[in-house]
Amino acid sequence: MEKQIDNHYRYLQQHFSYLIRQQALLPGEKLPSERDIGERFNLTRMTVRQGLQTLEAEGLIYRQNRRGWFVSPPAVVYNPARRQSFIEYVSSQGFEPSTDLIGVTVNPADARMAELMKVDKGARLLFLQRRRSIDGRPVLIEHIYINTALLPGIEKEDMSQSLTHLLRNKYGQAYHSMNLIFKSTALLEDAARELGAAAGLPGLHIERTNYDAAGRVLELDYEYWRHDAVTIQIDVNDA
Amino acid sequence: MEKQIDNHYRYLQQHFSYLIRQQALLPGEKLPSERDIGERFNLTRMTVRQGLQTLEAEGLIYRQNRRGWFVSPPAVVYNPARRQSFIEYVSSQGFEPSTDLIGVTVNPADARMAELMKVDKGARLLFLQRRRSIDGRPVLIEHIYINTALLPGIEKEDMSQSLTHLLRNKYGQAYHSMNLIFKSTALLEDAARELGAAAGLPGLHIERTNYDAAGRVLELDYEYWRHDAVTIQIDVNDA
Repeated sequence: MEKQIDNHYRYLQQHFSYLIRQQALLPGEKLPSERDIGERFNLTRMTVRQGLQTLEAEGLIYRQNRRGWFVSPPAVVYNPARRQSFIEYVSSQGFEPSTDLIGVTVNPADARMAELMKVDKGARLLFLQRRRSIDGRPVLIEHIYINTALLPGIEKEDMSQSLTHLLRNKYGQAYHSMNLIFKSTALLEDAARELGAAAGLPGLHIERTNYDAAGRVLELDYEYWRHDAVTIQIDVNDA
Repeated sequence: MEKQIDNHYRYLQQHFSYLIRQQALLPGEKLPSERDIGERFNLTRMTVRQGLQTLEAEGLIYRQNRRGWFVSPPAVVYNPARRQSFIEYVSSQGFEPSTDLIGVTVNPADARMAELMKVDKGARLLFLQRRRSIDGRPVLIEHIYINTALLPGIEKEDMSQSLTHLLRNKYGQAYHSMNLIFKSTALLEDAARELGAAAGLPGLHIERTNYDAAGRVLELDYEYWRHDAVTIQIDVNDA
């Protein structure tokens, strides 16, 4: 019995996977409703849901709350060595970037943040939460910590704009060196909810530390991406 | 009712997450059996399993088939710019690397592989499947395609050894430039089975193309990692 369920489920998965790879279903296109799929394949709603969630974990489709399932658009390519802002690399690939500001607060650094930012405990850190979207689809939650002592008055700026541009234009600060860490993980509840995704869906976690010319930490950036929205590309050239 | 199940489940998750972060449970340590956890928290086996799977997706624990659940060891750091082999970067971090050869075949290149490897269709490609482990835990499945025309006789070598070393020592070939692509995705059925993991678990997919000094493709390497086993680190320095 379990074998048979497994086969049905796999047939569903292979069916849609084939249609998407053959471009019979195009990026952004809506799949039939779960009910319709269930009737057509003679599967229970729960088996249909599991099959669709597997396709989502593979990065082929995604669910918009209450609107149904859609074919995933192509992932944007993020090449950190190019030092482009989100807005720059998304728009240069023909997509439309947008940013929602979720929260802005100024907090004293606790012991852990003081160590990470190389500041004294209690130093004023600007904390930003933002959601970024590509062609209207939320793809990424950002948690950003900024050293206000190095960027005086920054908390009065419009925090939905590109920080890269703000630092460059108002403060004459370009990012100098960056340290990046990439981890594949599951989206935790908060990030998943902000992205309209299911908790536990694979996600990409990026931690980026930006330094100024003197090696001081300007900014710490934690990004939680939908896994199907981004591909990291790195070229290592001859030394 | 559903609310209550959700709370129990979350309590279980927070309980073990806290013990692991406080190091009251240490890397490699075995968790109580699912039955024992169920009795202690008064939860059904299915709810216990879901809670544990969430902890697994977060990278805190992992399951060894038939042996139970264990606290995940720390992830190894892979820094591609250092050009170290798997054996080098794993052992330099104090872990024990090992390699199982799963399959070796020589096949004519189909149209897609010919394009990726920049060879004629039908050119002889060596195809390797390997499983690599850290301290005895399988962490990574490799699918490697090698251009035999550039490395004559390579198919007669021991393919469980480091290819980096083999190319360096026997062929005097160092890798010159590399192109790397990282994607967070779900482990598909085959890779999951080889790793003893559940299909659908988050995984990290790395595609690496290695070029020789003349810009020819020596080797294409597809890696499918358990997500909790590796962290990618990249430094972007001042231009």
